[in-house]
Amino acid sequence: MADINAVAKQFTDFYYSTFDSGRANLQPLYREGSMLTWEGTPIMGAAAITEKLTGLPFERVVHKITTLDAQPSSPTMASMIVSVTGLLVVDDSPNPLQFSQVFQLIPEGQSYFVLNDIFRLNYGA
Amino acid sequence: MADINAVAKQFTDFYYSTFDSGRANLQPLYREGSMLTWEGTPIMGAAAITEKLTGLPFERVVHKITTLDAQPSSPTMASMIVSVTGLLVVDDSPNPLQFSQVFQLIPEGQSYFVLNDIFRLNYGA
Repeated sequence: MADINAVAKQFTDFYYSTFDSGRANLQPLYREGSMLTWEGTPIMGAAAITEKLTGLPFERVVHKITTLDAQPSSPTMASMIVSVTGLLVVDDSPNPLQFSQVFQLIPEGQSYFVLNDIFRLNYGA
Repeated sequence: MADINAVAKQFTDFYYSTFDSGRANLQPLYREGSMLTWEGTPIMGAAAITEKLTGLPFERVVHKITTLDAQPSSPTMASMIVSVTGLLVVDDSPNPLQFSQVFQLIPEGQSYFVLNDIFRLNYGA
């Protein structure tokens, strides 16, 4: 079995650097059956997900990962759940926002696609 | 298909009320192949997971759910990913801690068991 922590690290490095440099380029990671729940709003399919991501109301964004955990998600295939917490700096805001994001990655050929994606900002207590 | 948001709500209500009233009673939710990653530490199997949870260094704990999101996690069975963010109040601490927790629930008979469980505290920026 591939080291899922290494795969999770490689995936999230790619995902967030792509998000931060040109988020339209995330579309190849999703499929027609992929799901994104963004701040409680459910969206399905690569095209609609890309439209949602590119339409978010900020120009510049930087993700900083604080924690990264991964587990195999199926006894029968090399899929995995990846859970991320981190900080998000948008535009000229001096205050980073905390976020939580969960992915399920499904193997396809020599790579993976995103079946599940759940994103939430975490506001203070 | 059952309404997965209703199942997720019912599961998390049960999970956290059981955690807060007597966390040894969570053991029936896990199986031998279940995984918990607690603050980065991986643990496998219902018995070891229960031992970890009951050994946590606090007596009284109250979970308050802030956000709850669920998605189907498989095209072939009624499994689901449940993502929770919330606040944790332990013992006499006046300061709630933010947490993120992700579950994958697998159908079994008329109910579900927890295959995946990832827990993280979220410290401030």
